[in-house]
Amino acid sequence: MDITLFDGFTNDAVTGFEKGAMIAVLVVAVMGLLYAWMLTRQIMAKPVGTEKMQKIAKAIRDGGNAYLKRQFKTIALLILILAAFIFATGFFGYRPPNEYDNPNWLIGLGRALGFLLGAGFSATVGYIGMNMAMQGNIRVAEASRTSFIDALKIAYRTGTITGMLTDGLGLLGGTLIFIIFFKDAPLVLLGFGFGGTLIALFMRVGGGIYTKAADVGADLVGKVEKDIPEDDPRNAAVIADLVGDNVGDCAGMAADIFESYEVTIVSAMILGLFLTEATGDLMWIMFPLLVRAAGVFSSIISTYTVGSSKSETDAMKAIHRGYNIAAVMSIASFALFGFLYCHDWRFFAATSVGVVLAVAINQITDYYTGATRGPVKEIAKATKTGPATTILSGLGIGLESSVGAILIIAASIAASALIWKGGIEIGGVEGQDALLCIFYGVALCGIGQLTLTGNNISMDAFGPVSDNANGIGEMAGLEPKARQTLADLDAVGNTTKAITKGIAIASAVLAAVALFASFKYEYGVPVIDMIQWKVFVAFLIGGAIPFLFSSLLINAVGRAAYYVVNEVRWQFANIKGIWEGTTDPDYGKVVTIVTSAAQKELLTPALLAIVSPIVIGFVFGLMALAGFLAGVILVGQLMAVFQSNAGGAWDNAKKTIEDEPRDLAKNTGKGSERHKASVVGDTIGDPLKDTAGPALNPLIKVINLVSVIAATMMLTKAGVERDNWGIAVAVGVIGLLIIIGALYYSKTQKTVGREDSGDAAPTQAAATPAAPAAAAKESKEQPKKKH
Amino acid sequence: MDITLFDGFTNDAVTGFEKGAMIAVLVVAVMGLLYAWMLTRQIMAKPVGTEKMQKIAKAIRDGGNAYLKRQFKTIALLILILAAFIFATGFFGYRPPNEYDNPNWLIGLGRALGFLLGAGFSATVGYIGMNMAMQGNIRVAEASRTSFIDALKIAYRTGTITGMLTDGLGLLGGTLIFIIFFKDAPLVLLGFGFGGTLIALFMRVGGGIYTKAADVGADLVGKVEKDIPEDDPRNAAVIADLVGDNVGDCAGMAADIFESYEVTIVSAMILGLFLTEATGDLMWIMFPLLVRAAGVFSSIISTYTVGSSKSETDAMKAIHRGYNIAAVMSIASFALFGFLYCHDWRFFAATSVGVVLAVAINQITDYYTGATRGPVKEIAKATKTGPATTILSGLGIGLESSVGAILIIAASIAASALIWKGGIEIGGVEGQDALLCIFYGVALCGIGQLTLTGNNISMDAFGPVSDNANGIGEMAGLEPKARQTLADLDAVGNTTKAITKGIAIASAVLAAVALFASFKYEYGVPVIDMIQWKVFVAFLIGGAIPFLFSSLLINAVGRAAYYVVNEVRWQFANIKGIWEGTTDPDYGKVVTIVTSAAQKELLTPALLAIVSPIVIGFVFGLMALAGFLAGVILVGQLMAVFQSNAGGAWDNAKKTIEDEPRDLAKNTGKGSERHKASVVGDTIGDPLKDTAGPALNPLIKVINLVSVIAATMMLTKAGVERDNWGIAVAVGVIGLLIIIGALYYSKTQKTVGREDSGDAAPTQAAATPAAPAAAAKESKEQPKKKH
Repeated sequence: MDITLFDGFTNDAVTGFEKGAMIAVLVVAVMGLLYAWMLTRQIMAKPVGTEKMQKIAKAIRDGGNAYLKRQFKTIALLILILAAFIFATGFFGYRPPNEYDNPNWLIGLGRALGFLLGAGFSATVGYIGMNMAMQGNIRVAEASRTSFIDALKIAYRTGTITGMLTDGLGLLGGTLIFIIFFKDAPLVLLGFGFGGTLIALFMRVGGGIYTKAADVGADLVGKVEKDIPEDDPRNAAVIADLVGDNVGDCAGMAADIFESYEVTIVSAMILGLFLTEATGDLMWIMFPLLVRAAGVFSSIISTYTVGSSKSETDAMKAIHRGYNIAAVMSIASFALFGFLYCHDWRFFAATSVGVVLAVAINQITDYYTGATRGPVKEIAKATKTGPATTILSGLGIGLESSVGAILIIAASIAASALIWKGGIEIGGVEGQDALLCIFYGVALCGIGQLTLTGNNISMDAFGPVSDNANGIGEMAGLEPKARQTLADLDAVGNTTKAITKGIAIASAVLAAVALFASFKYEYGVPVIDMIQWKVFVAFLIGGAIPFLFSSLLINAVGRAAYYVVNEVRWQFANIKGIWEGTTDPDYGKVVTIVTSAAQKELLTPALLAIVSPIVIGFVFGLMALAGFLAGVILVGQLMAVFQSNAGGAWDNAKKTIEDEPRDLAKNTGKGSERHKASVVGDTIGDPLKDTAGPALNPLIKVINLVSVIAATMMLTKAGVERDNWGIAVAVGVIGLLIIIGALYYSKTQKTVGREDSGDAAPTQAAATPAAPAAAAKESKEQPKKKH
Repeated sequence: MDITLFDGFTNDAVTGFEKGAMIAVLVVAVMGLLYAWMLTRQIMAKPVGTEKMQKIAKAIRDGGNAYLKRQFKTIALLILILAAFIFATGFFGYRPPNEYDNPNWLIGLGRALGFLLGAGFSATVGYIGMNMAMQGNIRVAEASRTSFIDALKIAYRTGTITGMLTDGLGLLGGTLIFIIFFKDAPLVLLGFGFGGTLIALFMRVGGGIYTKAADVGADLVGKVEKDIPEDDPRNAAVIADLVGDNVGDCAGMAADIFESYEVTIVSAMILGLFLTEATGDLMWIMFPLLVRAAGVFSSIISTYTVGSSKSETDAMKAIHRGYNIAAVMSIASFALFGFLYCHDWRFFAATSVGVVLAVAINQITDYYTGATRGPVKEIAKATKTGPATTILSGLGIGLESSVGAILIIAASIAASALIWKGGIEIGGVEGQDALLCIFYGVALCGIGQLTLTGNNISMDAFGPVSDNANGIGEMAGLEPKARQTLADLDAVGNTTKAITKGIAIASAVLAAVALFASFKYEYGVPVIDMIQWKVFVAFLIGGAIPFLFSSLLINAVGRAAYYVVNEVRWQFANIKGIWEGTTDPDYGKVVTIVTSAAQKELLTPALLAIVSPIVIGFVFGLMALAGFLAGVILVGQLMAVFQSNAGGAWDNAKKTIEDEPRDLAKNTGKGSERHKASVVGDTIGDPLKDTAGPALNPLIKVINLVSVIAATMMLTKAGVERDNWGIAVAVGVIGLLIIIGALYYSKTQKTVGREDSGDAAPTQAAATPAAPAAAAKESKEQPKKKH
C-alpha cells in the first residue's frame, strides 16, 4: 500500500508560487508566535509592586493554576477515549474515493493526532493566556501608580500575547496538516478542529461556572446585603472572584476564540478542497491560508502601535486606532490575493462581507449593551420600579437583540449566495456547483470575520486583566490616582468584552452552515428533507439541546453560588474582626467550593454534546442528523446572543447607576433601592452572559464536528444504509444510558459547602431589614480601616 | 359554470350510515350548545350576594366589557381587510384540480365567509366565556358563605359553559363547512381555522398584556412595597387586576382553546380529504368528526357529574373523577369507531396516542410547576439567597421543562410514524402514501389530545372564576369561613390552569406539523431541503419570530406595569385616607391605563404574524416558506413551554412560602425576605406565563395558516415559479414597510399614565427602607379598618 504525504511539494500541478506561499504562511505563523514570546519577555520585565500586591497576586495565581490543573486531570481520560474513537472513525469509516491510496490506519492516526494537536493547542492558548493575565494584572496595577499610558500598554499587550498565540497556533496547525496530508487533509483537519473545540467547550463550561459562582456569590452578599464595594477585602469570595475572571474570561475565552479561528479555517479548507478537486486549481485552499497569514501580519503591526505613543490618554481611542489599521491592512490583503492571485472578484467580496458582518455584529452588540444607548437606559429606568421590572426589561431587550443578530447572519448568507450564485466553470461549462460555491462563500465570510482575531483578543483579554488589576488595587489599598486609572481601564475592558462574544457566536453559525455542506458533498446526502418524519423529529430534539445545556449551566452556577453565599455569610457572622477589617476572611474556603463545583458540573454538558449527535445519527440516519444540526444551530444561536446581550445590558445598567452620585433620598447611586434592583439584574445576567451564553458557541461546533466525524461510521455501519440494525440499536441504547446517567449525576451530586449560613446571619438579615442600610452608611462614612 | 354544493347528500359513494352520521354530528354539536345554555340559566338563577359584592362585581363587569368592546373595534377594520385578502386568495389563487367545477369566486367567498365565521365563533366564545365568568364570580362568592359544594359547582359549571361553547361551535362550524362544500371543504376550512386563530391571537395578546400589567403593577406596590395582601381594597390596581383575570385568563384562554380545537380538526380534515380522494373512502374525514362528537357527548355527561353529589368535599377529586369518566368514554369511542366503522386498528391507536400525550404533558407540567414537587421546592429554597438566585433557579427549571415537553411531542410524532408507516392500499398495491398517512396520524393525535376540551376548559376557567370570587370576598370583607372556602377553590384553580396551557401548545405543534404536509400534497413542493440557502435563511428568520414576538409582549407588559406602579404609588402618597381605608382609591384610573396600553400594543405582534410569512413566501418561494415555518414551530414551542412553566413554577414557589407560618425572625411566610424574593420571581413569571408564553400557541398557528392560505397566490403569481418578479419584490417591500412601521410604532408610542409617582413616594420608599416592614407590621397587627 502506497503512502502519499507532502504531495504539495511533489505534485507538478502546484505552482512555484503556491509552494513558496505554503512556506511563507508557516513563516508568518511562527512570526506571530515569536512576537508573542517577545511581548511576554517585555511584560515579565515590568515591576511587580508592593509585597501586599504580590501576596494577593500569588493567591490569584495559585487558585487559577490549581483549578486548571484539576480540570485537565478531570478530562484527560475522556480525551484519550475520544482519541481512540476518532482513530476508529478513520480506520473503520467510509472514505470518499480520491487519488491517494493512503491506508485507513494512516488516516485514522492522522485524525487522532490532529485531534490531540488541536486539543493541545487550545489548552496551551488557554493556559498561557491565563497565566500571562495573572502576571499582567499585578504589573498593570503597579504601573497605574506612575503612568496611565504604561498601565494601558501592559494590559493591552498582555492580551496581545494570547491573541498572537491564537493566531499563530491556529494558522500553524491548519497549514502543517495541509502540507503533510494535502488532498487527504480534510479528513485530518476535522480531528484538529474537534480537538480545539472540545477543549474550548470544557474551558467555557468549567471556567464559566467557576467565575460566575464566585462572582454571583460575592455580589449577593457583598453588594446587596452588606453594601460594600466590589473587591472589598472583607468579602471571603473576593479572591475566588478574581481567580474566576482569569479562568473564565481569560482561559475560557482564549480557548473559545482559538477554536473559532481554527474551525472557520477548517471548514473553508474542507470545502475549498472539493472545489480544488473539481477545478484542479489550488487557489480555493490557498486563498484562506494566505488571507489568514496576512491577518496575522496585520495584527502584529497594529497591536504594537497601541500604547506606543507616550502622549496617549484615551485608551479606547488608541485601541480603536489599532483595530482600524489592522482592518485596512486586512481588506487590502483580500483585494491583493483575490484579484492578483485568484483573479476573481468574488474572493474579495466574500471575505469583505465577513468584515461587514463583524462590524454589524459589533454595532448591534454595542447598541443593545452600550451604557449610553437606549436599551440600557431603559433598563436603568426600569430599576425605579424594582428588580422585577428590571429583569423583565432586560429579558425583552436580550430577546430583541438576538433577532437583530440572526437577521444579520441571515443577510450574510444571502449575500454570499448572491456573490457565488454563478458557480464555477468546469470543462468549459459555466454555472457548475453553485451551491458548493455558496457554502464556500459562507466559510470565507467566517474567515473574513475572524481575520482580526489578534486584535479582538487583545481587546477582550484587556477586560479581565484590568478588572484584576483594579481588584488588586482595591485590596492592596493603592493611592486614589492609581485607583482612578485602574477604574478607567476596567470600564473600557467591559465594553470590549461584549463585542468578542458576538463575533465568536456568529462565527459558530457560519462554520456550522459551511460544515453542513459536508453532508451533501462528502457523504452524498442528496437533500435534507424536513418533511420526512425522522428529520423533523431529530430537528425538534436538536432544538432542545441548547435549552437543556443552558439549563444545566444556569443551575450549576445557581447551586454553586448558593454555597458561596452561605460561606461568606457564615464567615461574616462567625469570624470575629472581618467586618472591622482586623482579620482576613478565609478566602481559600470559597476557592475550594467553586473549584469543586466547577469540576463536578463539567462532564454532563460535554457528554451531552458528544453523545447526542452520535445517537441521533445511528438511530435515525444521516439526513435526520442534519435536521438535528439545523435545530441545534438555530436555537443555539438565538439563545447565545439572547443570554450574552441580556447579561451585558444588565451589567451596564448597573454600572450606569453606580456612576450616579450616591443620594439615597433621590434614589440614585450605589446603595440606593435602584442600585439594588440593578445588582439583582446583573447577578442574573452573570451566568447567562459568562457561562451559558458563550459556552453555546463551542457547543454548536462540538456537535457539528462530532456529527461530521462520526458520519463516516454511520454511513458504513448503520444509519442511512441500515445494513446493521444491531449496531444502530446498540449505539442508541448505550448513548441514551450515558446521557441519562450524566443528567442523573448532575441532578443528584453534592458540592462541598455549607447547607446553611449559620444561625446568626439569616436572623439578622431578615429581622432587621434596616441593617444593610445602616451598614452601608457606616461603610461609606468611615474610611475603611484597612486603607 | 356548475356549482356543486352539499355533494355529501347527493353523492352515491357516500353510505347511508355516513349521511346519517353527518346529521348526528351536527345534532351533538347543537346538544352541546343547548347544554351550555341550560347551565347558563342555572347559574344566572343563583343569588348574587350583598350590595357591596354587587357593586364590586359590576365594576369588574364594566371594565371587562369596555375592554373587549374596544378591542373588537380596534381589530374590526383589519378583519375586513383580511376577509378581502382571503377572498382574493381563493379568487386569484392556484387550485389543485378536483372533480367539482365550482367557480373561483365561490371558493373565495366560501373561504372569506369561513374566515368571518371562525373569527365570529372565536370572539363569541371569548365574549360569552368572559361574561359568564363575571357573572359566576359573584355567585361563587355568595355560595361560599353557605356551602362549599355549591360554590365548587357554580365555579366549575361556569367554566363548563365556555367549554361546551368551544366544543359545540368548533364542531358545528367544521361540520357545516364540510357538509356544504364536501370535497372543496379543505379550501374553505383554512379560512375558518384562520379566523378563529387570528381572534385568539388578539385575545391572548391584548388580554395577556391587560391582565399582567395590572397584576404586576398591583403586586409590586401592594405585596412588595406595602406588604398588603392580594386584592386589598386599598390598592388602586385591584379592580384592574380582577378585570384582567377575566379578559386574559377567561376570554383569551377560551378563544385560544377554541382555535386549538378548531385547527386540529381542520388539519385532520384537510389531510383526511387527500386520503379520501386517494382511496374513495369517506372514513378518513368522518372518523375525526365522529370522534369529536363522541368527545362532546362525553363532556356533557361527565361535567354534569362534578359537584352533583352533595357529600363532596375535595374539589380536585371531584374534578378529576369527571375527567376520568370523560377519558374512558372517549377512548371507548375511539375503539368503537376505529374498529367497527373504519375496520383499522390504526385509527384507534393514533387517537389514543393523543390521549397518552395529553396525560404525559399534564404530568410534566405538574412535575415542573406543582407546589409539592422537586423543582418548585428548589426555587423556594433558592429564595433564601434572594431574588437573583430565585430567578436563576426558575430560568433553569423552565428551560429544562421545555426540553421534556418537546421530547414528548417528538415521541408522539415518532409513534404516529410507527403506527402508519405501512401506508394504505390503493388499487391493490400496499404501502402507498405512507408519509401522508403519518401526517394524518399526527393530526389524529391532536384530535385525541383535545377530545376532552370540554372538561379541560371547565377546569381551566375554574381558575379565574374562583380567583375573582376570592377577590370579591376579600374586598367585600366576607366572613372567615367563606374566605377559607374561596381560598381553597382558588388554589385548585391555579393547578388546573397550568395544565391547559401545556395542552394548547402541544396541539399547536401537532397541527402545524400536519399543516406542513399541505405544502407537499396540496402545492406539490416535493422536498423541503434545508441545504438550499434560501430555505436556510428563511429558517433562521423563522426562528427569530417567536423571540421578537415574546420580546414585544414582555416589553409591553413592562411598560404598562410601570405606569400602573406609578399611579398606585401616587394615589397612596397623594390621596388622603387610602392607607387608613377611609377613602376608596381611584380604581378607574388604573383600568383606563391598562385598557389603553393593551390596545396600543395589540396590532404590532399580530401584523408581524400575518405579514412575515407572506413576505418570505413571495420573496424566497414556497420551499423557503416551509423552512421558515419549521423555525417558527421549533422556537415557538420551546419558548412557549419555557415561559409558561418557569412562570408557573415561580408562582407556586411564592404560594409555598405564603403558606408557611409568618415568622420574620425565621425568615418564613408572608412579608419575610424570602417571600419578597419569591414575589419578584412571580412578578417576572407573570408576563412570561400569561402573556408571551400562551400567545405563542395562536402565533404558531396564525403563521402556519397564513402561509398555507397565501401559498395559493405565491404559486400562481410569484414565488416558486418566479413568473412575476415584480409582484414578489412589491410584496416584499410593502410587507417589510408594514413590519418596520409596526415595530417603530410599538417602540415610540406613549401610553396614558404618569411618568413619575410624585415627589413623596420614591423618597419615602428609598430613604427609609424600613418603612415597608413597619407598614407590614401595622397591616397585620391591627385588623384592617374596612373589615
